Amino acid sequence: MIHAVIMAGGIGSRFWPMSRRERPKQFLSVVSKDTLIQNTVARLIGVIPIENCHVVTHTRYVEQTLEQLPALPPENIFAEPISRNTAPCIAYAAFKIQQKDPDAIMVVLPADHVIRNVKKFQEALKVGIEAAKEERALVTIGIEPTHAATGYGYVQFDPEDSESDNELKALFVKTFAEKPNLETAERFLDSGDFLWNSGMFMWRTDSILQSIEHHLPDVYDAFKEFEGEVPPEKEADVVQAAFRNCPSISIDYGVMERADKVYVVPGSFDWSDVGDWNAVFDLSEKGSAGNVVEGNVIIHDASRCLVQSDDRLVALVGVNDLIVVDTKDALLVCHRDSSQRVKNVVDYLYTHQLDDYV
Amino acid sequence: MIHAVIMAGGIGSRFWPMSRRERPKQFLSVVSKDTLIQNTVARLIGVIPIENCHVVTHTRYVEQTLEQLPALPPENIFAEPISRNTAPCIAYAAFKIQQKDPDAIMVVLPADHVIRNVKKFQEALKVGIEAAKEERALVTIGIEPTHAATGYGYVQFDPEDSESDNELKALFVKTFAEKPNLETAERFLDSGDFLWNSGMFMWRTDSILQSIEHHLPDVYDAFKEFEGEVPPEKEADVVQAAFRNCPSISIDYGVMERADKVYVVPGSFDWSDVGDWNAVFDLSEKGSAGNVVEGNVIIHDASRCLVQSDDRLVALVGVNDLIVVDTKDALLVCHRDSSQRVKNVVDYLYTHQLDDYV
Repeated sequence: MIHAVIMAGGIGSRFWPMSRRERPKQFLSVVSKDTLIQNTVARLIGVIPIENCHVVTHTRYVEQTLEQLPALPPENIFAEPISRNTAPCIAYAAFKIQQKDPDAIMVVLPADHVIRNVKKFQEALKVGIEAAKEERALVTIGIEPTHAATGYGYVQFDPEDSESDNELKALFVKTFAEKPNLETAERFLDSGDFLWNSGMFMWRTDSILQSIEHHLPDVYDAFKEFEGEVPPEKEADVVQAAFRNCPSISIDYGVMERADKVYVVPGSFDWSDVGDWNAVFDLSEKGSAGNVVEGNVIIHDASRCLVQSDDRLVALVGVNDLIVVDTKDALLVCHRDSSQRVKNVVDYLYTHQLDDYV
Repeated sequence: MIHAVIMAGGIGSRFWPMSRRERPKQFLSVVSKDTLIQNTVARLIGVIPIENCHVVTHTRYVEQTLEQLPALPPENIFAEPISRNTAPCIAYAAFKIQQKDPDAIMVVLPADHVIRNVKKFQEALKVGIEAAKEERALVTIGIEPTHAATGYGYVQFDPEDSESDNELKALFVKTFAEKPNLETAERFLDSGDFLWNSGMFMWRTDSILQSIEHHLPDVYDAFKEFEGEVPPEKEADVVQAAFRNCPSISIDYGVMERADKVYVVPGSFDWSDVGDWNAVFDLSEKGSAGNVVEGNVIIHDASRCLVQSDDRLVALVGVNDLIVVDTKDALLVCHRDSSQRVKNVVDYLYTHQLDDYV
């Protein structure tokens, strides 16, 4: 059977002051009425039934996850007591799902991405799931790049593999590349055989567990107890110990870049990881003068601004290309080109014991 | 005796959202710890005793005036029931002061200006007061222009009058000029015989009342009842009727530009009418990167910004030359070059029945 594992442990500090430690990006409605995690689950309807959807998230977000996804069986939430990047949380989920369903195929999806063309997304998903049925195969979805983005990692496929016909299929992966500089990104774009790394994966649970055992033995060993039955009353302690003993490492770096049987399905749907406020601006429908406005806002000669106000009146006069996010206790005024640096404000708040604002 | 009349009836909409209808600019601390009206009274100490200081203001500001100026005798506040520009309020004050002191010299000062060199200001004041002793003389203080300002009116003195020596003296006025365009302002600056019109005046009460009777008979007639004794219990009604019957007109346009015996004392002190938020920025001491910051503010790569926050945390990221003013119920984000247009926001609020924010 096909199982989804939605990774929802991020703290999303780039959406401060709207995102807070207690309410990170995946639980916010940033580009539509539903929240990003609600959209992520809704996108699977028709391919993976809700009983087979699982969410891995930090302990502190379990309650919010249940509130936002009432149809999700509570036992389908896997709580991480400590954040340890994606490899440990995928190992944990893989063991848990394999216990229920030894022949499971597992689809791993980030909870906080935006996808616009659901039909094309599901087509890519289905092709990837087929490819994942092969023993030891690790499959990812790549996104056909629309511009020389420097904020995404890239996946290079074997061009010979793709030349046969126009049918959507999983292509053999030659290499993974970290976020490039602009020059390299342009080269990637020109070459035609590089795709954006979307962080979406498909594999049999036995395939990924074998790969983790081989490439990340520390991670495998930390969760080894889940090879057998863990009594429910002991599970919390076992999980706690497992995460504590685990290194913090991503599945991309720890497994995907090192494995030899890796495929990529070239997705041609609109996709964004909504990495910062400027991405929200880009994804939003523009009003007059190219502004994106939510709340009680007066615009007097301002253009290409994103304004979100909780409840106060906000007046913009003679300004361009600003992000203005107004919440009860904190306000952000940021140039659109500097959105990536909002993270630094959150770092500053942490290091200066201003935790109330985080 | 010398009497001061401080004009404090303005509603100062250019300082929204800090200034409100209920708390206009003159009652705010915009560039120092004291408020502008407190500074205005303090600047007179040594020249005009507090018992001889009077404040003309709208009825709704009487209480605030008394709160901010506890040393001021309450009977020295002249309340305007309706705002009718400066000529009617000067007529009213002149009649009231003449009743107490028929030989009075009256010094008229706006409540909301900033003056930096008090010693030089008082020197100019004293020279102006001497000149005002002459029958029918109307004296104003001009400011030696430091740049080709287009936001101020100008006063042209007779250059022949000034050539005699370097002693500070009242010069004969040739003409008044409205706010010029940049080209004209540059010509004024080059000519050397134009000064900024500061809106500060000195005259004998009989001189100004004669001039008002001659040039603005409607205004004079409205207050005619004050030629004689008005019983205290009837005064409120008489004042109400007088202002209601008065045209709205400035003393500059109505009297100064038409009178023939007008003098100007060239003041060389630092002066500003603090016409908008950018003027506050210009007058304030700059911190690092040229920012002016008050309140709980995090600056992450921002320069030449003015930020005022009541109590919330404000973070600025990658922005320049902004005015950010944060109050309990409203927020302004404005380019420094657009400060003059803040007024338009207030107009918008009035016309859209958003009076709560005004």
